[in-house]
Amino acid sequence: MDDREPTLRQLGEFPMIDRLVAGRRQPEGVIVGPGDDAAVVAAPDGRVVVTTDMLVEGRHFRLDWSAPRDVGRKAIAQNAADIESMGARTTAFVVAFGAPQDTPVGQVQELADGMWLEAGQFGAGIVGGDLVASPQWVISVTALGDLAGRSPVLRSGARAGSVIAVAGDLGRSAAGYALWHNEISGFDDIRSRHLVPRPPYRQGVAAARAGAQAMTDVSDGLLADLGHMATASGVVIDLFGAALRADVDAVAPAAAAAAADPWSMVFAGGEDHALAACFPDRVPDGWRVIGTVRQGPPAVVVDGQEWTGPAGWQSFD
Amino acid sequence: MDDREPTLRQLGEFPMIDRLVAGRRQPEGVIVGPGDDAAVVAAPDGRVVVTTDMLVEGRHFRLDWSAPRDVGRKAIAQNAADIESMGARTTAFVVAFGAPQDTPVGQVQELADGMWLEAGQFGAGIVGGDLVASPQWVISVTALGDLAGRSPVLRSGARAGSVIAVAGDLGRSAAGYALWHNEISGFDDIRSRHLVPRPPYRQGVAAARAGAQAMTDVSDGLLADLGHMATASGVVIDLFGAALRADVDAVAPAAAAAAADPWSMVFAGGEDHALAACFPDRVPDGWRVIGTVRQGPPAVVVDGQEWTGPAGWQSFD
Repeated sequence: MDDREPTLRQLGEFPMIDRLVAGRRQPEGVIVGPGDDAAVVAAPDGRVVVTTDMLVEGRHFRLDWSAPRDVGRKAIAQNAADIESMGARTTAFVVAFGAPQDTPVGQVQELADGMWLEAGQFGAGIVGGDLVASPQWVISVTALGDLAGRSPVLRSGARAGSVIAVAGDLGRSAAGYALWHNEISGFDDIRSRHLVPRPPYRQGVAAARAGAQAMTDVSDGLLADLGHMATASGVVIDLFGAALRADVDAVAPAAAAAAADPWSMVFAGGEDHALAACFPDRVPDGWRVIGTVRQGPPAVVVDGQEWTGPAGWQSFD
Repeated sequence: MDDREPTLRQLGEFPMIDRLVAGRRQPEGVIVGPGDDAAVVAAPDGRVVVTTDMLVEGRHFRLDWSAPRDVGRKAIAQNAADIESMGARTTAFVVAFGAPQDTPVGQVQELADGMWLEAGQFGAGIVGGDLVASPQWVISVTALGDLAGRSPVLRSGARAGSVIAVAGDLGRSAAGYALWHNEISGFDDIRSRHLVPRPPYRQGVAAARAGAQAMTDVSDGLLADLGHMATASGVVIDLFGAALRADVDAVAPAAAAAAADPWSMVFAGGEDHALAACFPDRVPDGWRVIGTVRQGPPAVVVDGQEWTGPAGWQSFD
């Protein structure tokens, strides 16, 4: 840290916000951007999709692992994935950020830069926010989305006879975590995937257009999130182990280095923010079939058998 | 605390969310409520107003002063006031909540009850959220609003020759804070006003309909918030000290007990979330004229003079 760089306390709330807002180009559809009591964003569909997630330092990220820019990208990515999983286009974000008074302003700037970088991947902007003092970093992002006249794709629409497909990668974040946690260097791509997920942007809308019956993002783990879909839909989801081989192979070297099971990473690792959806039959480009849906008491099984490994992320463990 | 009452860790995230959601009646206009990856809310105007605020335990509230129910009410009230001050109707909230793992679930339930109680005053609901572990309570609320076809009322529309008016009370939160801070009992109403503000719900829409040119809520202090309006509009706002006499009289006994200046409470005390607006001439019912607007380098003055007392809330002091 450069000792000459001011802290949040030295610069103050409003000058810091001025710096964060300066030079940002708001996308079309932002009618009133930052600087007033609230923002105004186009909702051409006459409905707005909304989701919120909170990230707490030490719990959802570590500043000795993640650069502020990574934290900003992750916070935007995980909220955008929730909007995508409804079959909607993400239009705008508001961000509340708490940090200690002695936080260097450059770190706050980098956090915001990461947010804008990530949001720019799908043409959205940050239209407003709040900046407060907090004992540790806390980032709360709310994302808005537009359905363009389509019905939202819920978790409850999976039907017997349909197929389950995934867009995006599985297991990478969990593999990266195992490397960071065991202080294993190398595997730079996998380690970076724990810090910054790569949701398959625009595939949520593509899935909705292709007739997806149900969709969710994989935030808690594939089995956990498909479990919510199975419960909401009242169906059994039966996964093909072999269909997940490419993900297992991709994380296997990292898993071996960390003496961990690559299958557990793929089945139970969350935070990759892949999308998982149910389609009646054929799946669009960018999606791969990983299972089928049948009648029965709600459950997720693998090749017809119960999975007995770890289940996924728990918020209060 | 009842030792038999489970904690967040014991109950777990999803059962806790189930309890928070159970039995809530979502208002009309909520198309998809809690339980999926995102909510869907009607935005009949084709635009959506959005604002977010974060409250951190020990900074924005104290659990030895406020009951969880009060904290919930305050978090909703201050966000709703931001929507109101755009001339919009508040339609829905999403809430992210962080708390220690050993938090009794009853406290979380009470927080949510307070949120629903407050939101019910103007017909809105909580449509989604996030629940995470955090070293202290952190509450991040995002509010959505609808303009019903009107233009948003910005801070930048104040014009020379117009009047400044206020709806709602001033100075009460600051007076209540002085009592709590100095451990002075009695003055129950004033002390409660520090814990739970009472924004003048529906007066933001009434002001917009009556032709308000500019509007803001009083969150940082009357002079500070009107200062933002003066700067954004490029005008001088000249307040009539005598017009604020009723507010000063209302807080004077509490101020005297705390050996504090009641005028400072009215001019610089924030968090009452009154609305302050600029009207061309006449003001609607529920509003009182407290000043005029004239040309000149942006400033707020009182009876033509600079105010030399304290200025208002600073986030990083």
